[in-house]
Amino acid sequence: MGRLLLRCADRAGLVAAVSAFLADAGANIVSLDQHATEQSGGIFMQRTIFHLPGLPAARDELERDFAERVAGPFGMDFRLTEAAKPKRVAIMASKEDHCLLDLLWRNRRGELDMSVAMVISNHPDLADQVRPFSVPFIHIPATKDIREEAETRQLDLLRGNVDLVVLARYMQILTPRFIAEVGCPLINIHHSFLPAFIGAAPYRRAKERGVKLVGATAHYVTDDLDEGPIIEQDVVRVDHRHGVEDLVRLGSDVERVVLSRAVLWHCEDRIIRYGNQTVVF
Amino acid sequence: MGRLLLRCADRAGLVAAVSAFLADAGANIVSLDQHATEQSGGIFMQRTIFHLPGLPAARDELERDFAERVAGPFGMDFRLTEAAKPKRVAIMASKEDHCLLDLLWRNRRGELDMSVAMVISNHPDLADQVRPFSVPFIHIPATKDIREEAETRQLDLLRGNVDLVVLARYMQILTPRFIAEVGCPLINIHHSFLPAFIGAAPYRRAKERGVKLVGATAHYVTDDLDEGPIIEQDVVRVDHRHGVEDLVRLGSDVERVVLSRAVLWHCEDRIIRYGNQTVVF
Amino acid sequence: MGRLLLRCADRAGLVAAVSAFLADAGANIVSLDQHATEQSGGIFMQRTIFHLPGLPAARDELERDFAERVAGPFGMDFRLTEAAKPKRVAIMASKEDHCLLDLLWRNRRGELDMSVAMVISNHPDLADQVRPFSVPFIHIPATKDIREEAETRQLDLLRGNVDLVVLARYMQILTPRFIAEVGCPLINIHHSFLPAFIGAAPYRRAKERGVKLVGATAHYVTDDLDEGPIIEQDVVRVDHRHGVEDLVRLGSDVERVVLSRAVLWHCEDRIIRYGNQTVVF
Amino acid sequence: MGRLLLRCADRAGLVAAVSAFLADAGANIVSLDQHATEQSGGIFMQRTIFHLPGLPAARDELERDFAERVAGPFGMDFRLTEAAKPKRVAIMASKEDHCLLDLLWRNRRGELDMSVAMVISNHPDLADQVRPFSVPFIHIPATKDIREEAETRQLDLLRGNVDLVVLARYMQILTPRFIAEVGCPLINIHHSFLPAFIGAAPYRRAKERGVKLVGATAHYVTDDLDEGPIIEQDVVRVDHRHGVEDLVRLGSDVERVVLSRAVLWHCEDRIIRYGNQTVVF
Repeated sequence: MGRLLLRCADRAGLVAAVSAFLADAGANIVSLDQHATEQSGGIFMQRTIFHLPGLPAARDELERDFAERVAGPFGMDFRLTEAAKPKRVAIMASKEDHCLLDLLWRNRRGELDMSVAMVISNHPDLADQVRPFSVPFIHIPATKDIREEAETRQLDLLRGNVDLVVLARYMQILTPRFIAEVGCPLINIHHSFLPAFIGAAPYRRAKERGVKLVGATAHYVTDDLDEGPIIEQDVVRVDHRHGVEDLVRLGSDVERVVLSRAVLWHCEDRIIRYGNQTVVF
Repeated sequence: MGRLLLRCADRAGLVAAVSAFLADAGANIVSLDQHATEQSGGIFMQRTIFHLPGLPAARDELERDFAERVAGPFGMDFRLTEAAKPKRVAIMASKEDHCLLDLLWRNRRGELDMSVAMVISNHPDLADQVRPFSVPFIHIPATKDIREEAETRQLDLLRGNVDLVVLARYMQILTPRFIAEVGCPLINIHHSFLPAFIGAAPYRRAKERGVKLVGATAHYVTDDLDEGPIIEQDVVRVDHRHGVEDLVRLGSDVERVVLSRAVLWHCEDRIIRYGNQTVVF
Repeated sequence: MGRLLLRCADRAGLVAAVSAFLADAGANIVSLDQHATEQSGGIFMQRTIFHLPGLPAARDELERDFAERVAGPFGMDFRLTEAAKPKRVAIMASKEDHCLLDLLWRNRRGELDMSVAMVISNHPDLADQVRPFSVPFIHIPATKDIREEAETRQLDLLRGNVDLVVLARYMQILTPRFIAEVGCPLINIHHSFLPAFIGAAPYRRAKERGVKLVGATAHYVTDDLDEGPIIEQDVVRVDHRHGVEDLVRLGSDVERVVLSRAVLWHCEDRIIRYGNQTVVF
Repeated sequence: MGRLLLRCADRAGLVAAVSAFLADAGANIVSLDQHATEQSGGIFMQRTIFHLPGLPAARDELERDFAERVAGPFGMDFRLTEAAKPKRVAIMASKEDHCLLDLLWRNRRGELDMSVAMVISNHPDLADQVRPFSVPFIHIPATKDIREEAETRQLDLLRGNVDLVVLARYMQILTPRFIAEVGCPLINIHHSFLPAFIGAAPYRRAKERGVKLVGATAHYVTDDLDEGPIIEQDVVRVDHRHGVEDLVRLGSDVERVVLSRAVLWHCEDRIIRYGNQTVVF
């Protein structure tokens, strides 16, 4: 099974061109989703899942052909992947276990289409919990003072080795240099509220404001800290009987679910980014 | 803007054939959704929205051409509609106003892409509430004893005049003859629970069972009463402080929202039926 | 049926003192909820529903006795109301009808325990829709330039005549003077997002940010515009296929439900305010 | 901190009697919730959390006094527990890990107020996953043919040793004899649908029916299999793109959350049963 994702300026004949190309190549379209941001003149995005016997051997040639015959003429960005090749993923965490363990556990159950290459943490605390999953746990101390050195060590491990980095409650800031050099997308999870509380002690401030919902947002990481394209959000109801600790606990429940959905969709190549937004097919 | 919905046995080349046909006809695909029930050998369904200048004039020819060149060879059921032509809808109600008024009100706001041809009720109670919406209100008494006569009068009004009948808490049973002869789909709303309570006094029995959720299901009507293809469902939380009356009130809130979603999606030609299921694109 | 709401510094014996007082007075406690903000040393709040034959006649004396024998010694704020006396409510609206009509419609169904004294609008547009509900519709033009004069006219109508003012999408700013002089609580509804968008065109900006949820917040009005104690919040899921207009439509659906819940709870004396928060019993 | 739960026929003076008793005993009421099933003549239930220095030593005498002076005269069922004494819990599971692991993991985080005495399984598969949590894993084979023998072995381990048995996807039927002799409540989790699917292969049948929601119900176990008092329910949305496997996966997510909430509430003594219902304070 192959997956073809593409994005270009909208114009007539795009779907026809792509589906004709795939039919010519002997591929059967199993699923096709597309979206145009405007009725006309917007951005066009498409995700096509196709079945093509012998895809692994034929892939490079198919990619070249598509680039030459379709993507070039239409000015498309595109990505061709094989469903059978799970994404290689690194998870970065600090001391909190809920997001990290949920990802590892779901992956062991076969729910996530990924291969976890390593867990990197700036604390040693979670090593014992990661070990039973047979995933390398690498402790790289990181603080504001040794950020550059820490990031260099992290980059040495990550660059070229993974297709995705998941920040599963990793509590250190990553520099623009890290994001530029890591060479793959990063997904982050953070709390989110209505209205939002940015900065320190969000749950305490949310409690003081008497919010009736707490939630979480998973997003791609960009240089604008916590402002990257949103992938998924969800909330849970709270009331006056919930103290700050309860908000944190219930927020954690939402965080792990929201993050795992975002990672699943990324690993299934369901997400296309444009502007500061995502389309999730 | 045109909408092309189709359903057939899955096989290679379907998307290509349809999109090539539309490109040839000078149409630009604005949106395309498709779904196959199996990876191969299942049922294939597709909804395509396309832009074609001069569609109203060209429509009949386009339909003939498509039937001949694509639908015939591939054995497709298909439907070609114009977005600019709102569905003609009849609403049938009894004494409860929440579903009926919500549909009329949403339509007045322009939220639903429909033209309400008439409201038929077996009681006169709601006439005053319907009048301000400038929609004909027709009172046709109906009981078990005069069912045949009542249905004959209803069919005289409906047959050929409407594209959809919405049962907005219409509390009389409709016979298979009515469903066969009315000549258009019917959408119904009924309560639904976890676990479900079929039969009389559902909210009282749900209360006795101590349910923590009440909900509603909108579905197409078939001869199997309340067992037709589900279009939409939703629920709301309740607890021990809610009495039977509260369950009814909260259930009504869910009913009107679920029914209006189902009607909206139908009027936008988003729904394709197969077996006893629906695909909602 | 009587309702006794109270708030004071927490200390031992509060529940005992209140329930002994009510038992002495011949009242049977039907329902009692209480909440303390801390395990000790916090604020104590309690809502008690009691049954007392002859309450309307005995009310004034009961209130005096309670003030003298319980509220005084314990330093309580309290409020004693009769369930049989619905709150007198004024609704203020502008051009959008969804919140206003939903309140009027729910009240006609008997869902809200209130008597709508008047609708005040700064536009004449909604007069025709209000009339069938037999509620006075008063048009008081209001703009930034004539704010003081408009508020004076509004206050003349409201002061002493209503127990609650509901801002059902009233799009003019109210001055601190108005809030101080109106002499009753005000409930407002506004959109809310994760992360929040303050200021103009919130739905457009939310769309640009690619949010996956839109929501609404009902709150009491204080001098801090839109920052008063939250009563209720809810959200609905959206995705990339929803345009700005869809967000507005779906947001409206949440707004009317959230506002009607807040008004219901207020009218049932379920809400106690403290700090910038609410307890909803 | 002490917890007093009681249930009796409703009558005037109940709250006063209980709170006077506690005040006399030097206890400060931290939280009090009560519920009457009818306005008068129904069942009265109350949960009181109180602070009393020296409770562990004074407990037995307090219990005797309360029985004599309050519970006896008012015909109350009651239960007096200490918050500091976590419930002793046995978890029974088969091959599926999601509910079991979530309970163990939440307990390790300190989210659940329980001490897990043992895990009993009719399969050895989950032993490796339980071991890191330092909880005894006991494999007791159980099939229809050796049910009596298996239950005898289970009862030998459970009777007198635990305060609660949680069936975390335990796939064997338990006999009325087991339920009668185990001497403590049992909580079970099962899927639930709108409309419900009882019997084998529920997710496949739900898929064939085209449901738009899948859910889970946690309930106390009675002799009527899967018909005991509901503690908690929740649902998640699905659509036509979800296959049977997706329904199972998403259903599992709901199951673990719903079960963990039910167990938490039970361990915090929040639940009072009456008839076939629960009150969750």
